[in-house]
Amino acid sequence: MHRPGGARAGAARRVLDLLRAEGVISRVELAERTGLTAATITNTVRPLVADGLVGEVGRDPQPGRGQPRRLLRLVAGAWHAVGIQVDRTSATIVVLDFAGARVATANLPGTGGRGPDATVAALADHVDSLLDRAGVARSRVLGVGLVTHGPQDLERGVLLTAQPGPEWLEYPLTGTLAERLGLPVLLENDANAAALGEMWAGAPRTDTFGLIYMASGIGGGVIVDGEVYRGRASNAVEIGHVALAGGSRPCVCGGAGCAQAEAAPHTVVARALGDRVLAERFAVTGARDGTLADFDRIARAWRAGDADAAAMLERSAHWIGQAAVTLVNLFDLDTVVLAGPAFAVAGTLYRDHVAAALERRALGRALSGPRVHVSSNAGSAAAHGGALHVLRTMPVGAPPRLPAAEPARGGAP
Amino acid sequence: MHRPGGARAGAARRVLDLLRAEGVISRVELAERTGLTAATITNTVRPLVADGLVGEVGRDPQPGRGQPRRLLRLVAGAWHAVGIQVDRTSATIVVLDFAGARVATANLPGTGGRGPDATVAALADHVDSLLDRAGVARSRVLGVGLVTHGPQDLERGVLLTAQPGPEWLEYPLTGTLAERLGLPVLLENDANAAALGEMWAGAPRTDTFGLIYMASGIGGGVIVDGEVYRGRASNAVEIGHVALAGGSRPCVCGGAGCAQAEAAPHTVVARALGDRVLAERFAVTGARDGTLADFDRIARAWRAGDADAAAMLERSAHWIGQAAVTLVNLFDLDTVVLAGPAFAVAGTLYRDHVAAALERRALGRALSGPRVHVSSNAGSAAAHGGALHVLRTMPVGAPPRLPAAEPARGGAP
Repeated sequence: MHRPGGARAGAARRVLDLLRAEGVISRVELAERTGLTAATITNTVRPLVADGLVGEVGRDPQPGRGQPRRLLRLVAGAWHAVGIQVDRTSATIVVLDFAGARVATANLPGTGGRGPDATVAALADHVDSLLDRAGVARSRVLGVGLVTHGPQDLERGVLLTAQPGPEWLEYPLTGTLAERLGLPVLLENDANAAALGEMWAGAPRTDTFGLIYMASGIGGGVIVDGEVYRGRASNAVEIGHVALAGGSRPCVCGGAGCAQAEAAPHTVVARALGDRVLAERFAVTGARDGTLADFDRIARAWRAGDADAAAMLERSAHWIGQAAVTLVNLFDLDTVVLAGPAFAVAGTLYRDHVAAALERRALGRALSGPRVHVSSNAGSAAAHGGALHVLRTMPVGAPPRLPAAEPARGGAP
Repeated sequence: MHRPGGARAGAARRVLDLLRAEGVISRVELAERTGLTAATITNTVRPLVADGLVGEVGRDPQPGRGQPRRLLRLVAGAWHAVGIQVDRTSATIVVLDFAGARVATANLPGTGGRGPDATVAALADHVDSLLDRAGVARSRVLGVGLVTHGPQDLERGVLLTAQPGPEWLEYPLTGTLAERLGLPVLLENDANAAALGEMWAGAPRTDTFGLIYMASGIGGGVIVDGEVYRGRASNAVEIGHVALAGGSRPCVCGGAGCAQAEAAPHTVVARALGDRVLAERFAVTGARDGTLADFDRIARAWRAGDADAAAMLERSAHWIGQAAVTLVNLFDLDTVVLAGPAFAVAGTLYRDHVAAALERRALGRALSGPRVHVSSNAGSAAAHGGALHVLRTMPVGAPPRLPAAEPARGGAP
């Protein structure tokens, strides 16, 4: 088993990470990129090949440079990982192969008014059917990354908040899901997972950046030198609950004037619902679990040129810009990524407002102006990152042989 | 030379750090604490002893456990480091020996209205005379840590701000001081240096904590797992320039409602000066470079039971509390340290206000209530940390032999 921890396991982990990031790479490049010696790379790669985790894929001809290099890549079908992002109004499940490629995705309703028992049961059913449809054998699934809003206790796998309802506080989320699926489950924060997903997609073009995640609520994540900033207990970057200058609306966190209270979709939708003409024009429903759908209707109206929709979104974007300035000044970042389903339609409007706010107020701008991107994968970056978190951190040994009856699609070499 | 970087140098660095933190420690404990093998420790320690950096100091008798362990400690006089903290209204210089003990301290006026040329020349003169008085040979000084407010470009050794005046922006601070002293100079942020100083003093009793630094201005530092959080370019944790809810005063950074504008000593002093009765009672002078001295007069009046002084400081402490909540919620911290000369007299008043604000508003409090300490070394923690930064990061080889004429006090073994 190539477990995390220990010098040898650390080398295996770095080799697997680099192969996952690069796709195909030679032993020489592995040594160059990790700083490990050629001998260490040889000794690290050998058991990975023997275990069927890494395969050799032909040779890289190097004109005039002697023997061609043998190239390595991950055996995509060796293992899989599941990522589940769940929120009040939406949920996404993705299945990744061992190389980090997406082999299946499902978009589902969120928790809605349901309690954790019903939610976990429904998510487990969906995971079952998604694995079946993708032809992924259960015995080849390394684990599940469950991605929710914070604050969380990652070790115990519970939420430390009574959101979305009091029955969620301290409910044994990962324990119940693990028992139901017969698979290990890791809990992760939605914004951290989205940041991890973004980094692996290569979009931020830097290994130090911040991310603002907006779904029903607003969270934040920071990646420093390629790793998630976790602080004391992984409940960092609560950018949705910093009281902003000029803010006043009461927030579910008990404070007032937080970005989440001022800018999140429910506030924008509530404002539209307060004006009968606009509510009708945007076709917002006010349905209890339809906040993101209603928000998308307003965003589409903006896209179609509606000035009132633009004004509503700009009011929200003003607060996101202020939150981004705080994030950049406190974490010293030159890149901010906007991710999460709420940025899927009107991401460019938010991007332009955030860029303008950073231009005005970020202290570090003397070094270089902070950049702002909208995630190319705004809706499912968090679920994707949850599955990557499993691939990157769970102990991984030789995959079990598949019995004849079990499906084995998804990429034996 | 035991330079940073590379596996062998990394081991030497960790051994030196542990010896500096623990004072006296055996090879067996070094192996246990670093996770390195006994053989690596033996091979790492041997050249350090040969170079005169580490010495053996008798044996640790272990009843019934065979041969007594030989204990190791740093050779205190092998090298020294200088730390200089400078600000508009005050400056502190400290000299540490190789073991991190303070061998000399000087408190001086700050930059005042002077430009960087005059300031650097004066600081260099003071360093010269302090080294002479302490009997520290120049050839045994590893380097100087120069500690200022940010934002900075650490690599080029310049400020990226026109504070305290336009001639400071991009002035070659470390280059000029290094040339004048004939010693290498590292630039460091005041709050980061104070946090490093606090950690080495052991006061926070945790290796993940935040620090709010208040002198003329307000800065912040975060230590995570024993290392300074640096972000992209070491200009992180600008907690003095986050716009706070309810804040409105214009700030030197170009924003408004920042903690520095609302809470810093000059604002408190300006308020006292605005009321002739109070100004007279507190004996505030309004002298251009006397802000911290005036602030201390108000703090001493509070200590003597003056209710008006209490009200003024509480108004400032309210904003520091709000800044601490932001710091804790974004960096996920369970400890906040208050450091810097402005907390020297009224630190406990600020501590109580910050603790109450964190109790009300910190999201992570479900895990455990954040703690607040006032630095036991509020005035000189930053200079101390600047010198430690030199000891921890600069390449260190065998100290030169001292010629007979050069003084060699300060601890040859």
